[in-house]
Amino acid sequence: MALELFELLGIDDRRFSPYCWRTRMALAHKGLEPETIPCRFTDKDKFAFSGSKTVPVIRDGETVVSDSWAIACHLEDTYPDRPSLFGGAVGKAEARFIGQWTDTTLHIALIRLVVKDIYDHLDPADHLYFRDSREKRLGATLEEVHALRDERRPAFVHALAPLRAVLREQPFICGDEPAYGDYTVFGAFQWARCISDYRLVEEDNIVFDWRRRMLDLFDGLGRSVLGYPE
Amino acid sequence: MALELFELLGIDDRRFSPYCWRTRMALAHKGLEPETIPCRFTDKDKFAFSGSKTVPVIRDGETVVSDSWAIACHLEDTYPDRPSLFGGAVGKAEARFIGQWTDTTLHIALIRLVVKDIYDHLDPADHLYFRDSREKRLGATLEEVHALRDERRPAFVHALAPLRAVLREQPFICGDEPAYGDYTVFGAFQWARCISDYRLVEEDNIVFDWRRRMLDLFDGLGRSVLGYPE
Repeated sequence: MALELFELLGIDDRRFSPYCWRTRMALAHKGLEPETIPCRFTDKDKFAFSGSKTVPVIRDGETVVSDSWAIACHLEDTYPDRPSLFGGAVGKAEARFIGQWTDTTLHIALIRLVVKDIYDHLDPADHLYFRDSREKRLGATLEEVHALRDERRPAFVHALAPLRAVLREQPFICGDEPAYGDYTVFGAFQWARCISDYRLVEEDNIVFDWRRRMLDLFDGLGRSVLGYPE
Repeated sequence: MALELFELLGIDDRRFSPYCWRTRMALAHKGLEPETIPCRFTDKDKFAFSGSKTVPVIRDGETVVSDSWAIACHLEDTYPDRPSLFGGAVGKAEARFIGQWTDTTLHIALIRLVVKDIYDHLDPADHLYFRDSREKRLGATLEEVHALRDERRPAFVHALAPLRAVLREQPFICGDEPAYGDYTVFGAFQWARCISDYRLVEEDNIVFDWRRRMLDLFDGLGRSVLGYPE
């Protein structure tokens, strides 16, 4: 049986979940081509068999795994002869730090710039769920958050400081070649790119060049989906 | 010839440089016991032979290396049979990211809490240099920065978010055992601990427990120097 990936879908063919992108890139890194099953936020019944309320979920033969980190660990353990996602135990632990940095710093700064754009690119069936859950989380209406995004852009640019600094030293976060740490951070940028034309990084920015290299990987996998041009 | 470490010294025996702590811990990880040569900020002539204006500097036989990252790379390359600082190429690249996060996020938030305490623990010969250079960098007098530190503490606590999150998953940043990524972040805490009794992390905080484990390493190396109790 083919490996199946249940991933988040917006309107049209927008595949915008940052966590699903971590998994998509990890699968490509391992040379695995999943059959993707698109799911809206409110399509939870499609992957209820997994016991998870969120995607990504994969079904790999008899094994079902949910949560992007657990999936990465599963792939690394199950396909040890294919290119490594972590490069060993220390690389794996540090990739987890990079994931936590992405979640607690980058995503937090980014959501305030693009949350209204996400809403505008959702299937209408997801509108009520998304507005309700996100407005509670952000403590403001989507429109209020949107109105302040230019003011909040510098906080996002500041949050990128360690990324900018490390990319001055090496082409990828994980060194000469990309690995899971790169996919984790790239997921945040794909999240934005799939649903927003808001300019996050400038043309002359070192982060922009890294994102372009990431978009080039695996025959342009990141560029192959519906999104806004870089 | 013994391996020599030129490191920063404050008043009495305060060894407070975060970068020197990275090197100290890296040396201990490799089982190397350096002869330390303490230097004040204004003792640059002591290590001028290195071509560097800052410490740490090491002299390892015929080889002189300055800059904590270059020193870590030197130690890893020169002593490959001793415990690895990075655990491979990906671990090394990601450790660099953690170093840049420490420099651009953690240090920036921390300096505003303890800069006046640093000044108060310097040899008087260093006072003029330190006040002048730091007040330019911070855009305010040391006393002005100090007066606002309680207001700025939440920004430091927020900056710790990825560290707190990753330590919920694993005992060290680098996994089950500490490695260079841990020493990098620990350097920031030693910087504070050696010169300040300001309470950075609370007793019940997961970061506090990690710092205690770090202080326990190598027969309590981090605790063996003059500092404030945790």
